[in-house]
Amino acid sequence: MSRFFSDKFRDLEPYVPGEQPKRGTMIKLNTNESPYPPSPKAVEAAALAAEDLELYSDPKCLAARETVAKLFGVESDMVVCGNGSDELINFAVMAWCDGGRPLVSPEISYGFYPVIAELQRVALKRIPLKKDFTIEPADYLASGGTVMIANPNAPTGLALGVSDIRIIVEGNPDVPVVIDEAYVDFGAESCAGLVKDYDNLLVIQTLSKSRSMAGGRFGFAIGGKALIKDLEAIRYSTNPYNVNSMTMAAACAALADTEYTKECCGKIAETRERTAKELKELGFSMTDSKANFIFARHPSISGKDLFLRLREKGILVRHFDKPAIADYNRISIGTAEQMEAFVAAAKEILEENGRTGR
Amino acid sequence: MSRFFSDKFRDLEPYVPGEQPKRGTMIKLNTNESPYPPSPKAVEAAALAAEDLELYSDPKCLAARETVAKLFGVESDMVVCGNGSDELINFAVMAWCDGGRPLVSPEISYGFYPVIAELQRVALKRIPLKKDFTIEPADYLASGGTVMIANPNAPTGLALGVSDIRIIVEGNPDVPVVIDEAYVDFGAESCAGLVKDYDNLLVIQTLSKSRSMAGGRFGFAIGGKALIKDLEAIRYSTNPYNVNSMTMAAACAALADTEYTKECCGKIAETRERTAKELKELGFSMTDSKANFIFARHPSISGKDLFLRLREKGILVRHFDKPAIADYNRISIGTAEQMEAFVAAAKEILEENGRTGR
Repeated sequence: MSRFFSDKFRDLEPYVPGEQPKRGTMIKLNTNESPYPPSPKAVEAAALAAEDLELYSDPKCLAARETVAKLFGVESDMVVCGNGSDELINFAVMAWCDGGRPLVSPEISYGFYPVIAELQRVALKRIPLKKDFTIEPADYLASGGTVMIANPNAPTGLALGVSDIRIIVEGNPDVPVVIDEAYVDFGAESCAGLVKDYDNLLVIQTLSKSRSMAGGRFGFAIGGKALIKDLEAIRYSTNPYNVNSMTMAAACAALADTEYTKECCGKIAETRERTAKELKELGFSMTDSKANFIFARHPSISGKDLFLRLREKGILVRHFDKPAIADYNRISIGTAEQMEAFVAAAKEILEENGRTGR
Repeated sequence: MSRFFSDKFRDLEPYVPGEQPKRGTMIKLNTNESPYPPSPKAVEAAALAAEDLELYSDPKCLAARETVAKLFGVESDMVVCGNGSDELINFAVMAWCDGGRPLVSPEISYGFYPVIAELQRVALKRIPLKKDFTIEPADYLASGGTVMIANPNAPTGLALGVSDIRIIVEGNPDVPVVIDEAYVDFGAESCAGLVKDYDNLLVIQTLSKSRSMAGGRFGFAIGGKALIKDLEAIRYSTNPYNVNSMTMAAACAALADTEYTKECCGKIAETRERTAKELKELGFSMTDSKANFIFARHPSISGKDLFLRLREKGILVRHFDKPAIADYNRISIGTAEQMEAFVAAAKEILEENGRTGR
C-alpha cells in the first residue's frame, strides 16, 4: 500500500476470487460458472449493442428492469440493476448497515460478505451453522442488524424453504432481510414472491450462474419500492451508468429466454445428482446441494490434498482454508463429460492413496 | 427512502445524469458523447467476447492493463481498470480521503466529485476558479487534502499545461493529486508522463469520449505502483469482476486502434473550432475549450432560456442551474451536420428574440 492509504482500511482483506486459468488449459470447476454458453439471443443482442457504444447506457436501466419485473410479476420500480450482484450486496450494506446496525450473516457463507462489512466498516455478526451446516431460522429472529443470507448457501449448497425465509423476515420487522439467491435456479425455491408482503425483504439474483453470463456482470434485486429507492440513491451516487449497454441488452434477452435457462438448469441439476451418486460410491460424503456445485469430503484424504492432486491432473476445484470446512472441496458442476473426468480423477487419486498408504 | 435508510446518508444528493432520450429522437449534444461509432475493431472484439460470457471476466484485467501500459510506456502494475472512470474516482476518494483529509477540488468542476465526497462522508474543500474560469495552480499548494482536478476542466473545457500540473503535484508532496483527463484527447496535454517522477500523482482517463465507448463503461488510472495497489485493494473488496469481458475486449481493441482515435478526435476538434467561430459571429462568448464541448453564453438570452428553446427545436444541450455558470450552456460537439443544425437553431432563437423583444 502507499503511504497515503487511509488508516480506516488497515484491516481490509480484499476478496480472493477463484483462479481464472487461460481458457481450455484446465477443467475448470472452481468458480461455479455454467458449462453452457449464454442464450444465442443474448449473444446476438450484445453484439448489436456493441455497435452503438458511443452513447451512454441508460442510467435508469429501464429495459432490464421491465424485463425482470415481467418475469417476477412485480412493478419495474421494485427492481434495481447492478454490475453483478456483488455491487448490489455492497449497496445494501451501505444503505442499511451502520454503527447501530451490524451485518448479520451465517458464519459460513459467501466470502464476499465479511469483506464488504470490513470495507464499509460495519460490524459483522456471524451466526453459527448447525453441525450439519444447515441454517436454523430461529437463530435469526430479532437479529438486531441487517440480515444477509445466501439461499442456497455457499459453499454448502443447502437451501431454506420459503416458509423458513418467511419466519426470518417476520422475525426482523425493523431491519431489512436480504436473501441472495445466486444459486436458486438449480433446485431451490425463490422467495421473490414474498416481496409484495413485506417491506423489509430484498431478494438478489444474478445472471452469472443459471443464465451463463458470469463474464457479462449483471445482477438485480427485487424488493418494496422504498427499499429500491434506497439502493437507487446509492447507485446514482456511486456510478449512475453502472450497467453497460451490451450487458443490458444481453441481460434482457437472456432473462426472456426462459426455455433456454430451464434447459441448462435441468441439465446441470441432472449432472449434479449423477455426480453425487458416483462420488458416494467412491466413499465421499456431501451436503444435499441445491446449487450448481457439490460440497464434498472423503474420509481418507484431506480437502487440501485432494484439491492439490486434482490440480496436478488438470482439474480445478475450490478449496477454502477455513477450519470448519477444510475437509471439503466445492466442485462446480460442469458438463457430463467434465464431471466424468473429475470422478475418474478422484477415483485415481483415492486408488493411488490406497497403494501408497498415504 | 425506506424507514431503514441509514442516517449517514441524510444529506446525500445523488448525481443527476444528463437526459438520455430515445435514440434518433433528438440531436443529442448534452452528455459529451462522441458522434462517431467506436472503432470497428472494438465492435468486433466485443461481439466475439459475447460468445464466451459463461466464464467470469479476468479479475486482474491483465489484457487491458497491458494495453494501457504499452500505450503510455509504463508497467502494467502501474495501471488499474474501472467500470467507467467514475468508479475509479470513487475508489480514489475511498482510499485517500478521510476525517483528516478532505477532497480538494475546483469550485466549478465535474458534478460527480461533490456527490462522491458526500457518499464517502469526507469534507469537500472547494477552491474558487478565477474570474475567467481558469484554475490557478498556486491556489492548490499545500492543499491539506487529496486534490482532484479535471483537466481539461468540466464544464469549462479549460486546460492546464503539464508544467502547471507539475507545480500542483510538487506543491502537495504528502497527499495524492488526482488528474481526471476524461477530455484530454481533444487538444490538451496529458500529464501521464509524470507518473514516473512522482509517487503522489494518479492520472485517470476514460474510453467514454475520445474512444466512443460511453456505453461500454471503461476507465483506467495510471500511477505509481503503491497508489495502484491501494486502488486494487479497494477494487478487490468492492467488485473484483468490475469490468465485464465484452468491455475488456472492446477496450483493448479501441486503445490499440490509435489511428481511428486520432481521426475521430481530429474531426471533433475541427468541428469545435468551426462551431466556436460561427457562434462568435452570432454574438456568443465562450471559454477556450480544449474538450469535446463548447461552454458558451449570449448577452441577449439567459442560459436556461436558450437551453429550453433549443430543446423545443429538438436539440439537447446541458444547462447547469448553478449561479456562477447559469448564463452558460455546455454544448457537446456532434458531427458537422449536427453542429450546423445547432448553430442554425441558435440563430433562429436569437432572431425570434430580436423580433419579440424578449
